Amino acid sequence: MILLLTALIAAASPSEIAASAPATAWRTIAPENLLLLETARGTLAIELAPDFAPAHIAAIKALVVAGRFDGGAITRVQDNYVVQWAARASPLAGPPGPPGPALPAEYERSDKGLAITPLGSVDPYAESGFANGWPVARDRKAGTAWLTHCYASVGVGRDNPPDTGDGSELYAVIGHGPRHLDRNITLVGRVVSGIENYSSLPRGTAELGFYKTPAEQTPIVHVRLASSVADALRFQVMDTASATFAAYLHARANRTGFFVRPADATDLCNVQVPVRRAP
Amino acid sequence: MILLLTALIAAASPSEIAASAPATAWRTIAPENLLLLETARGTLAIELAPDFAPAHIAAIKALVVAGRFDGGAITRVQDNYVVQWAARASPLAGPPGPPGPALPAEYERSDKGLAITPLGSVDPYAESGFANGWPVARDRKAGTAWLTHCYASVGVGRDNPPDTGDGSELYAVIGHGPRHLDRNITLVGRVVSGIENYSSLPRGTAELGFYKTPAEQTPIVHVRLASSVADALRFQVMDTASATFAAYLHARANRTGFFVRPADATDLCNVQVPVRRAP
Repeated sequence: MILLLTALIAAASPSEIAASAPATAWRTIAPENLLLLETARGTLAIELAPDFAPAHIAAIKALVVAGRFDGGAITRVQDNYVVQWAARASPLAGPPGPPGPALPAEYERSDKGLAITPLGSVDPYAESGFANGWPVARDRKAGTAWLTHCYASVGVGRDNPPDTGDGSELYAVIGHGPRHLDRNITLVGRVVSGIENYSSLPRGTAELGFYKTPAEQTPIVHVRLASSVADALRFQVMDTASATFAAYLHARANRTGFFVRPADATDLCNVQVPVRRAP
Repeated sequence: MILLLTALIAAASPSEIAASAPATAWRTIAPENLLLLETARGTLAIELAPDFAPAHIAAIKALVVAGRFDGGAITRVQDNYVVQWAARASPLAGPPGPPGPALPAEYERSDKGLAITPLGSVDPYAESGFANGWPVARDRKAGTAWLTHCYASVGVGRDNPPDTGDGSELYAVIGHGPRHLDRNITLVGRVVSGIENYSSLPRGTAELGFYKTPAEQTPIVHVRLASSVADALRFQVMDTASATFAAYLHARANRTGFFVRPADATDLCNVQVPVRRAP
């Protein structure tokens, strides 16, 4: 009994549309925006979104170049929520050190210059859709747009005051999209490869899924930008302004094959924008 | 930097509302509807929903009583999707045996007699809410209601024809709520305890997350109904018709403390109905 097998072989399924997408339907991720985190569990590849959080991403890149994440650790895994990692001198990993400069909240940006492909279904949180490969929401009245919390979204941990995140602690979503966090934390990107090796980490048993002891943490060997690595992995994201993505989105909302009742609707986080290895 | 810690200590947070809920706001799960799956990873406790899928649940209980799941295995873990297990004589675990009798699709039921607490936010898929502790959706025109696919929902694997699930292969959702499956597969309940030990299983690397070899599977020691186990764990689910749940639902949609911008909305699967150990 093979759940959903037929969804993969039916004509015009989402997977088939992605598999047969023309080369023009893909955007190659710039190596300077591709973060590669290495642990014994493999590579976690993250696309950064400088169009949405330039100050945080500049800070994160500076930490990466300074080697601050090398020797850091995965400090927290909370079920149906997040996996979180920390640079060496952050409060939770390695010896305490001075925090980085406080960064401004980058919870939203102007919606000017963003071509947003509409989701095509109602969204309880805001008008939503996709811009340049990212799931986004917007407020037309305020003229703002923002990245949204879906599975694999990557954000910047912070304490209570909204400006205290310094980029030295990051998390990736590993559960149902916690959209209530939208515009409450700065999102900086999303995992494009390897999340399955990290979403399967043992959950921490201390409060909020933190590991009780350093021995339970997964040490980070290093974090690098793909632009600094010879022969780094290269990935492509589907162009969400393409006709192929329009077909993909329609197929996600109207599943065939295995499905006896297509939903004729979808929710933002139930549409993961396709990613592939660059050919 | 402790993500969301303050959400736990702010007044009227969802967690606080659940922690201080009066005894009357809880419904004890009937032991005959509490399935206990045991592996080396611990107990997975599942509440069954006979009000929604009586034929499937009768079939599952018969398999349990016959010991058919004992010696079965977890055969599939697909990231951001499902963990799936199979009885001994099902095609995927142990030696092949005759399938059980084909069951009718129980994808929806009459909405008569169901007191549904509205979600209070729009839902892209259907009108939705909560009935007797379950996340549900409905079609007023057709007079139907159905269980929905959220994190921890448990359903019955099936092949392409909609009536072929026999209850010998079950799955639990371990990712973003795959609501497109609603009314396409029979849901029979939800995990109320232990999912973190199973959502953290290594992902299968064969197609659809199946394990390539039996050695990768997690053997099932046994599956029993709590009604047949002396001193079985007992759980309570929050009464979704209670004033406490109304407050909880409101607090989920309007987070305080850590949050600088309450969403004033939520989505069905972002509201997990609270469960606790029976005092």
